Amino acid sequence: SSSSSASSSSSSSSSSPSRTPLTDLAIITLKKTPFLDVQIPSLISSSTNLQLNWQNDIYKQFAGHTESRLNPLNVNIIYPATELEIKKNESANSEHCYIRETYDDYKNITLPWIESLPSSALTWVENILDKKAETERRVVEDLDPEVGFMLNYDLKWDRKSMLNLYCLAMCLRRGIRSMRDLTGKHLPLLKNIREKCLKAVGEQYNVSPSQLRLYLHYIPSYMHLHVHVTATSFDAPGIHAGRAHLLDDVIDELTADPDIYQKKTMSIVLPVNHPLVKAFRNAKKDPASS
Amino acid sequence: SSSSSASSSSSSSSSSPSRTPLTDLAIITLKKTPFLDVQIPSLISSSTNLQLNWQNDIYKQFAGHTESRLNPLNVNIIYPATELEIKKNESANSEHCYIRETYDDYKNITLPWIESLPSSALTWVENILDKKAETERRVVEDLDPEVGFMLNYDLKWDRKSMLNLYCLAMCLRRGIRSMRDLTGKHLPLLKNIREKCLKAVGEQYNVSPSQLRLYLHYIPSYMHLHVHVTATSFDAPGIHAGRAHLLDDVIDELTADPDIYQKKTMSIVLPVNHPLVKAFRNAKKDPASS
Repeated sequence: SSSSSASSSSSSSSSSPSRTPLTDLAIITLKKTPFLDVQIPSLISSSTNLQLNWQNDIYKQFAGHTESRLNPLNVNIIYPATELEIKKNESANSEHCYIRETYDDYKNITLPWIESLPSSALTWVENILDKKAETERRVVEDLDPEVGFMLNYDLKWDRKSMLNLYCLAMCLRRGIRSMRDLTGKHLPLLKNIREKCLKAVGEQYNVSPSQLRLYLHYIPSYMHLHVHVTATSFDAPGIHAGRAHLLDDVIDELTADPDIYQKKTMSIVLPVNHPLVKAFRNAKKDPASS
Repeated sequence: SSSSSASSSSSSSSSSPSRTPLTDLAIITLKKTPFLDVQIPSLISSSTNLQLNWQNDIYKQFAGHTESRLNPLNVNIIYPATELEIKKNESANSEHCYIRETYDDYKNITLPWIESLPSSALTWVENILDKKAETERRVVEDLDPEVGFMLNYDLKWDRKSMLNLYCLAMCLRRGIRSMRDLTGKHLPLLKNIREKCLKAVGEQYNVSPSQLRLYLHYIPSYMHLHVHVTATSFDAPGIHAGRAHLLDDVIDELTADPDIYQKKTMSIVLPVNHPLVKAFRNAKKDPASS
């Protein structure tokens, strides 16, 4: 999800210091891609060289080398890279910290941090919602001002395999920063996103509801309510306990108690160099206690 | 954790038909390997061909092709393959199914399946609890009959790095099959496991509570209550939403409502060839509906 916001953002206000381009730096990300079914005959063939590493009884392990064309990489380049982009990408692979955020912690630690973020950080979201950008990646949209949303397929998804399907639904309504702002009043919005996304993704990509996992992040990587729609089979970044909250569970929790997110303690896992981790460590002796 | 139980169980009866070799079948597994630091200069060089897929402002995405030697595969071959091996490998990398299990579904579908499991499936657990096996992997134990447990380090952990720390706490009390059996009465047990595991793992491996993630699985891979203790930084198998339930959240939920797990709908992600998926598909038209 760090890569989601990074790849989706269309930079703008060059006046904000954190968004100043550093013209001599680039961020290069290389990712191996999943095997495709059509490659299997070529992979299981004499064109793959095998060197035996280990064997025991019926079990053998080899190092294999295949033709270059069978091993495409997904390469992302951000150039020139801003300070903000560099910070985001640094934190993607670091150690993580477990935090218990009471609602008081939210008000005293998390909310001040959210309010300190420059409004320009959401310019790229506004561009999408105003149809100034990324309209070509639309899967479905609902323009109702209360329960409307836009569903785009994410840049992390190559659309070649359904196994790593990744779409992102952004609500049209402004001002819902995160799960902490959700109340029972938002149930129509959340249910609308669930029903219409399941239907549209199901029809366009021929997948059933049981092949899809819909979830929110807490802490999200940007402060405008959005719902991740990924293949159930996909071990997506940010799918882990302490980050992903299944939309069905969120709807159930709000149905049982409309103010639950203005009361309950949230369990959060964040990279140690996320700015919020520093804020929690300054404010609480043990971030894992509540 | 399927591997946890598999590796802990001692196979036996060679007469069992499921271990008969099928001499004409092999299991071939190809896995892409992580990039190595030493490869970076070669990867970020003119020997990597790039084709532009997409660009927007400072963001560009390419398909890249590198030299074959930079893309080794990890190849495992099992030959001749037994029926048992084929079953295991089918479920490991298969597609997954999202299920919404109401409490009625639990009683009508899940519980009959649990009760159909042979009691011998828990022999290896009894061996641990009776100190007949695996005492050498003990981290800490509390022999109180009500709130006691045994914490072992897991075979998945090589104890070379704290980044993939993995321990498993099993309660001494028999008969708590899964989260569905938990009520407010079990809060002293769960809190005892939390406090003593955090303390023991913290002292023996020099990690703080914010470096550890404690969670239960639902559906668990065996039906005796256990708590996973892993490094917060570790992307452990089964850490995903729809499987892992953070112990802190479980304690909070039981504190708010002692009977919550005898009421709430559970969101479950399972491999499609897990026997429970077949049972749900037979019983419900859409396993993802509740």
